[in-house]
Amino acid sequence: MSKAVEFYFDVGSPAAYLAWTQLPAIAREAGAQIEYRPFLLGGVFQATGNRSPMEVPAKGQYMQDDLQRFARRYGVPFAHNPHFPINTLTLMRGALGLQLREPQRMVPYGDAVFRAIWVEGQDMNDPATVAGVLQRAGFDPAQLLALASEPAVKDQLKAVTQEAVARGVFGAPTFFVGQDMFWGQDRLDFVKERLQQ
Amino acid sequence: MSKAVEFYFDVGSPAAYLAWTQLPAIAREAGAQIEYRPFLLGGVFQATGNRSPMEVPAKGQYMQDDLQRFARRYGVPFAHNPHFPINTLTLMRGALGLQLREPQRMVPYGDAVFRAIWVEGQDMNDPATVAGVLQRAGFDPAQLLALASEPAVKDQLKAVTQEAVARGVFGAPTFFVGQDMFWGQDRLDFVKERLQQ
Repeated sequence: MSKAVEFYFDVGSPAAYLAWTQLPAIAREAGAQIEYRPFLLGGVFQATGNRSPMEVPAKGQYMQDDLQRFARRYGVPFAHNPHFPINTLTLMRGALGLQLREPQRMVPYGDAVFRAIWVEGQDMNDPATVAGVLQRAGFDPAQLLALASEPAVKDQLKAVTQEAVARGVFGAPTFFVGQDMFWGQDRLDFVKERLQQ
Repeated sequence: MSKAVEFYFDVGSPAAYLAWTQLPAIAREAGAQIEYRPFLLGGVFQATGNRSPMEVPAKGQYMQDDLQRFARRYGVPFAHNPHFPINTLTLMRGALGLQLREPQRMVPYGDAVFRAIWVEGQDMNDPATVAGVLQRAGFDPAQLLALASEPAVKDQLKAVTQEAVARGVFGAPTFFVGQDMFWGQDRLDFVKERLQQ
């Protein structure tokens, strides 16, 4: 198996959530592996001058309808988070820490965090809420927080984010198949086509 | 025939060009009429705080690949215009003037101008180039310029643009089917679904 799709995601992005729900089936059908790249979207915005569509009020308003239309098309639950934007620094350090130390637990962690934010509308800016979500998903919150605070984990999240910027990434989700970059959950059909070539 | 799709376009938008090439077949298959809404994208950006994706260098770079992928999918010619951005004020006044005075000539005018910008890469900031393009398409450039200079035409372009902003439009192309708004040539499949309901 040599085919792979790289998937840059940040749990604060609703479009990344939708992609998270859809990419596994696409990869499976194409016989491709997903290489998860947890990164920090805020760092990408800062480095590239890009910004969240939510910062333009008319666009933010429309995006809610647009994401909801895709959620219906995909048949997945989705609700805008009233606490948006979420500061995802610690959450993404947690994802990266798991990927480094207990890789098989990274996807269940992502499932739990994405679900808390983009289905349940929880306030994941609040440490007690985060702890509750993680505990219910079978994680030890204190242990995860310690992992997220390790210098090696912090440095690696920075490195992945900087590498993304160097490769031309400006938003999330972003996919790479070989050198070909695709931005947005609405480009998953192109990712699929590219994987099937 | 009561079904209709409204199509807000500005010839300076490459995504509007792609939509221009695809919408007629979609409308025809759905038995719907296209209500063309020539407007000024620059005015929309100013009013909403939105901006061209090309203003973020990494995004502008990617958009060229993205538009090219869609052009291949649609089977239409497309080339990035080296003179981008084009100041489309006079060009869009021309489109609106024709729509008011000789409505049957608006689409041929749009065909010629979109093609000059997004297929031939012409410098439509240059009046002599514009005159040549229009002449070859069977228009009298001097007459069109006079039409584009009429106060009623200028006012109407402003009014259409302001109305678009009031309806929540923030970019181009934008479509309405009834109250439902769709932004982007990459949402034409949703427009199609909506028209077939």
